[in-house]
Amino acid sequence: MRPLIPFVHQLDNAEADQWCATLRELLPSCDIRLFSQLSDEAKAQVSVAVVANPDPDEVAQLSNLIWLHSVWAGVEGMMANLAHLPFDIVRLTDPHLAQAMSEAVLAWSLYLHRDMPRYRQQQSLNVWRPQSYIDACDRHIVILGLGVLGQKSALRLVDNGFRVSGWSRTLKRIDSVACYMGEQSLCELVAQADIIVNLLPLTPATKGLMGRDFFNRVKIGAALINFGRGPTVIDDDLLQALDEGQVSHAVLDVFAQEPLPTQSPLWGHPAVTLLPHISAPTSVATASRIVAANISTYLTQGTIPPSVDKTQGY
Amino acid sequence: MRPLIPFVHQLDNAEADQWCATLRELLPSCDIRLFSQLSDEAKAQVSVAVVANPDPDEVAQLSNLIWLHSVWAGVEGMMANLAHLPFDIVRLTDPHLAQAMSEAVLAWSLYLHRDMPRYRQQQSLNVWRPQSYIDACDRHIVILGLGVLGQKSALRLVDNGFRVSGWSRTLKRIDSVACYMGEQSLCELVAQADIIVNLLPLTPATKGLMGRDFFNRVKIGAALINFGRGPTVIDDDLLQALDEGQVSHAVLDVFAQEPLPTQSPLWGHPAVTLLPHISAPTSVATASRIVAANISTYLTQGTIPPSVDKTQGY
Repeated sequence: MRPLIPFVHQLDNAEADQWCATLRELLPSCDIRLFSQLSDEAKAQVSVAVVANPDPDEVAQLSNLIWLHSVWAGVEGMMANLAHLPFDIVRLTDPHLAQAMSEAVLAWSLYLHRDMPRYRQQQSLNVWRPQSYIDACDRHIVILGLGVLGQKSALRLVDNGFRVSGWSRTLKRIDSVACYMGEQSLCELVAQADIIVNLLPLTPATKGLMGRDFFNRVKIGAALINFGRGPTVIDDDLLQALDEGQVSHAVLDVFAQEPLPTQSPLWGHPAVTLLPHISAPTSVATASRIVAANISTYLTQGTIPPSVDKTQGY
Repeated sequence: MRPLIPFVHQLDNAEADQWCATLRELLPSCDIRLFSQLSDEAKAQVSVAVVANPDPDEVAQLSNLIWLHSVWAGVEGMMANLAHLPFDIVRLTDPHLAQAMSEAVLAWSLYLHRDMPRYRQQQSLNVWRPQSYIDACDRHIVILGLGVLGQKSALRLVDNGFRVSGWSRTLKRIDSVACYMGEQSLCELVAQADIIVNLLPLTPATKGLMGRDFFNRVKIGAALINFGRGPTVIDDDLLQALDEGQVSHAVLDVFAQEPLPTQSPLWGHPAVTLLPHISAPTSVATASRIVAANISTYLTQGTIPPSVDKTQGY
């Protein structure tokens, strides 16, 4: 009998079909099925599942699950609802994702560095006014979160001439990037940053990290890029910091609720650049190759890839 | 007697004073003066001058001039008015300028590549709609003009994952960049480009190069970045190409008349990003060091730096 591997998702049908079709091609020896196609008996057979923002109740019905593979890097939704269950959670580590994210960090850092929001505003007012040019080496960019995405982003910024520091929960070493850890150094670091890039995972320790106290500590006129997770930022406190000029501009790609509700004051704020969660889109083609390879290894050798540390949440 | 070196300019006074003060510091053995401070007798003594967009009539009064050094890279104004006179024209070749220009080419290529104009428009309409992501290696960027600025820009784009081709009057060789020359290959090349970057000098051969015929040949939906010179583009033809969707977006930093007149339809066009000639600002600090070094070499060894080819105009 072929191993039965369900795809548990809350995507739209076309997207789910694309994932299933691609996984079937890559894992011809497996029986890839949508969760909705499983009998109760079949559910009890499942030892490994592939998931995309799954309904936790559906995952909980896989009573003999040993591990599941998320097709995304962020797993905070599952951690909140499924961490107490005995199976391992594996998240996506995709070089393509790191490539797209580091490109996005560079693109929107350059957007701020080269004054694009101001030139856009000047154009709308028919104003011709060159801003003074600052060398990239005189712009200090601080990256919060130095996982695979953060490390690659830091190096890309260094390669393009910026001065880069990084901060993470555990101390990392990266060539040409000054790395820090700990609460005290976070305070010192954000006080020196011209641009702060958030790439931290969402955990109990990072939720609400960027609130009133945080923004009071940043250098006046610093800019924020949030490509991590929405709830790391307290929106009302950010809006106040923007209105007071403490923060000059915010590029926001992630939000507590997505799509961002129409009534959010972030939409119309002149100092906010709002993006619809596009900094690092998952590529079905590259992600499914990684997921399929991990599942093949498990089925042939019994090895489960490094999984999420449930005490840390990522 | 100290060599007399006039600074001939049409800048504002503060900027001219900054240039003179910096040059005086770097060339203490020279007598640096504003043109307006020269007697007729003094004018006849001058063998070398430093100029910033000079009034041609003033330069023509320096009857024994052997060469002049522009503090800018573009010299088309002087070529039009002074090329018939017997002195050599030296233009600025500043690594800092190439650094700033390659950064600008990368910044606004990423701006187009990552759909920033569209996300800006969507934000203004409260629309949450992710655009599909295209890998940088699937974006073909064509650079027109492969002088120092063009070569550095091409390499920066390659380093950041783009597919890059280049075109110039004389054939160049650049690692990882497909280089072309000649009118036929220009037509073929622009038909394949997703983004066309103009860095050509303004000469009789490039004036009006980007007109109706040119835009009819580009791939439908290609974007244009003009960081070269304004008159290379025929504005009315560009506007028509934008309105017809042949060209999807234009990032324009240079114009036939600067500041761009308020009544220009480019200001308010939704598919135009308008910049006030800021892609590669001259740095007084780095440029004056280069100018001073060239003048020192001339005064001590009699050597004039490579000068503009008056038959080509750059």
